[in-house]
Amino acid sequence: MSDMMPRNARHNDINAEASAYHTSAATHATLSIIKGDILHTPTPDDFEVFENGYIIVADGTVQRITSDLPNEYANLPVTDYSGSFIIPGFNDLHIHAPQYPMAGLGFDYKLLPWLERYTFPAEENFADPAIAQRWYKRFLNKLWSVGTLRFSAFATLHAQSTLQLMRLSQQSGLRAFIGKVNMDRNAPESLIEGTDDSLATTQKLIEKSRKLTPDIGFIVTPRFVPSTTPELMQGLGELVERYDLPVQSHLDENLGEIDWVRDLHPDIPSYAEVYEHYGLMPEGRTIMAHCVHTSERERALLKARRVYLAHCAQSNMNLTSGIMPVRRDLNYGLSVTIASDVGAGHVPDINRHIVQSIEASKMLSMLPGHQGEHPLRLPEAFYMATKAGGAFFGQVGSFEPGSDFDALVIREGDNPLGLSPQERLERFIYAGDDRSITHRFVAGREIPLPFPEA
Amino acid sequence: MSDMMPRNARHNDINAEASAYHTSAATHATLSIIKGDILHTPTPDDFEVFENGYIIVADGTVQRITSDLPNEYANLPVTDYSGSFIIPGFNDLHIHAPQYPMAGLGFDYKLLPWLERYTFPAEENFADPAIAQRWYKRFLNKLWSVGTLRFSAFATLHAQSTLQLMRLSQQSGLRAFIGKVNMDRNAPESLIEGTDDSLATTQKLIEKSRKLTPDIGFIVTPRFVPSTTPELMQGLGELVERYDLPVQSHLDENLGEIDWVRDLHPDIPSYAEVYEHYGLMPEGRTIMAHCVHTSERERALLKARRVYLAHCAQSNMNLTSGIMPVRRDLNYGLSVTIASDVGAGHVPDINRHIVQSIEASKMLSMLPGHQGEHPLRLPEAFYMATKAGGAFFGQVGSFEPGSDFDALVIREGDNPLGLSPQERLERFIYAGDDRSITHRFVAGREIPLPFPEA
Repeated sequence: MSDMMPRNARHNDINAEASAYHTSAATHATLSIIKGDILHTPTPDDFEVFENGYIIVADGTVQRITSDLPNEYANLPVTDYSGSFIIPGFNDLHIHAPQYPMAGLGFDYKLLPWLERYTFPAEENFADPAIAQRWYKRFLNKLWSVGTLRFSAFATLHAQSTLQLMRLSQQSGLRAFIGKVNMDRNAPESLIEGTDDSLATTQKLIEKSRKLTPDIGFIVTPRFVPSTTPELMQGLGELVERYDLPVQSHLDENLGEIDWVRDLHPDIPSYAEVYEHYGLMPEGRTIMAHCVHTSERERALLKARRVYLAHCAQSNMNLTSGIMPVRRDLNYGLSVTIASDVGAGHVPDINRHIVQSIEASKMLSMLPGHQGEHPLRLPEAFYMATKAGGAFFGQVGSFEPGSDFDALVIREGDNPLGLSPQERLERFIYAGDDRSITHRFVAGREIPLPFPEA
Repeated sequence: MSDMMPRNARHNDINAEASAYHTSAATHATLSIIKGDILHTPTPDDFEVFENGYIIVADGTVQRITSDLPNEYANLPVTDYSGSFIIPGFNDLHIHAPQYPMAGLGFDYKLLPWLERYTFPAEENFADPAIAQRWYKRFLNKLWSVGTLRFSAFATLHAQSTLQLMRLSQQSGLRAFIGKVNMDRNAPESLIEGTDDSLATTQKLIEKSRKLTPDIGFIVTPRFVPSTTPELMQGLGELVERYDLPVQSHLDENLGEIDWVRDLHPDIPSYAEVYEHYGLMPEGRTIMAHCVHTSERERALLKARRVYLAHCAQSNMNLTSGIMPVRRDLNYGLSVTIASDVGAGHVPDINRHIVQSIEASKMLSMLPGHQGEHPLRLPEAFYMATKAGGAFFGQVGSFEPGSDFDALVIREGDNPLGLSPQERLERFIYAGDDRSITHRFVAGREIPLPFPEA
């Protein structure tokens, strides 16, 4: 798209920190002022747009957005991205870091042969710390490039390489929750752990990461019910309680899996309740990926526990899992976020997952049982990819006062058609890619490419 | 993906023509020998793969592929793309050139408001030759970049800018059919022509382009039945006959449109038969876009006339048109190709449309009436995007002997996982983009970026 570069764009490579400024005001806050076309979604209803607006950031937190620069800030330097637009960073609540190297492979296969032929061998590689080092650096570079500034990732069952991913993530400047995967049944022998080993290793990793990676949290990560014995789930639930940890797993991805869980746990009425039963659904701190085929009973539980549902539209198409009934879930009051599910999703680019979520929703709106449902609109899907997922990390994902200033600066070609900022954002979401993202900020700090050598 | 570049790739910028060689053999053909991992789909069943193979090209036409270089060629220079893979170029049989600037806009709207708010105003701009010049150059650069080497495009109703597109396409080195759009009813006043004017202008354009653009054919392009009166269709049918021309239009995109056609032509049993009735379905030379909701009767006609069906999976999702039942149509013996339908499709990248076609097919396979249908497999979709569409241009779209040598050279990262050439192609199709395409050949000639200044 280099041919689309604006001829008159001002090229600002001013580092935000360089332009920060110690005021003499009582707060002594480090202030930054950033100018551009500002768009965000405080609610799913619509974009709030400040054309040629200003964001005032103090110590990494948004103070306010204004259309005109107030007098009190008149003498402060402005980092000027005029001609570009500024949006919150993307948050991806479900991604398998070790599957990045094989993303895009094997989709002529169904889920089980796909796992056996591609996913498990790919994950086995991560027993080797050198492989983990190389690929996790590339993984983080890639997330950075596509504007995913916060994420929650499955690593593998290997403690050492999981810690590596946590340390590399800490170095990268991105923010994340990362979990060592636990599996002690129904997986290839090379990926099965002893139950006690699995728990002991996990506990050690929790302790280590608390010291080593202040910005990267540990998240308890049973792969999914079929691959974790009751004893393991019980033990993991105790770790959740003891260390006050969040949890991520898979739920109701496809019908065969649901039958399998019913066979494994005939005494527990639903799949979701298995997690709950073992203490693996801490309130407001749980991510459940897919949720394509939830029952009413499960939805009530997911709502009560304020679970984050990670909608993986691309993955659900690739693996023929089905279409998540997002409109129904939103109407019911569930929190739905947009996630890549790399490697069952083939690209990590959240802008493309926004589009795919809208497309899936349109497909569903034509089907019996869903006719008359209004398909997802762009501001709703954008909200799901920014603020809805950002909440897992605190006040993140919009530019409302008090939010962490996580932002992408996007320069998306010249504008001979006279498009509005919202239309230009729309075109970026649908037809743009990382080449248009010129700057990335996490909690007020500009983040350079994490590992240029990787 | 620059971080994924192979460290040991040989960088060949040898121009194919520079390496051409006049043999002393009886043929006196200009021979080129190209080396790399060669993949193509002579049939939809599977890829044919020649790892470290050679393609012998004589005067722009494939002579043969071999795994080892025969002695008779031992002294000829080889253009060596070892480490890269070589595939046929992509062919896009349905794209609206003037809609490229607004691709990705307005998809929260349904078809009619989308047309009124975005498409028609975008097309009106092309009355201005300066706008046409600027945007058509960018359009051609973009097709080049994503590897679409042949295409069939709708221009606008403006004769001058349509001729501009034809001349620019001729300059670009790409190959195409291009049509001035005809509309004399049911469109905004600024886009309606008088019937006689429309016919006279079209005829002049046909005559001019025959002289000026030897590699770019004119294709008769009624927008669709609702926007062309019977008189206009009759006149266009006469031009088809008189100048032996191909035809492109839209068919059965959505249910409202089908009802509309039925109201407009109550005496003709089906939508497809309206085109046939007016001489707008020349055998083996007609493209019909969408065909989402064809009737049995129509399918019989499409088969008898050997019509090219352009499957626009992305557009059909964006505009909530439905899912084309591709498996049923293939089983029936119809020729289905893959098309971008930019701007109702948001990107022209055919690799992404291959993926989206597979995804749509998987979605459909879960629905009542289609359960048990095998979703499209990658080699089938690749065939649809290369050989099936290429046939519209002659023997194009595979490397079988006698085919035009249309090719993309793709360098897609290093290969620490030891992926096979087919897996690397698969990863490119799913997760790659134009940045991996390093060389493009049309009928044996390497094509540089057409308009570096645009």
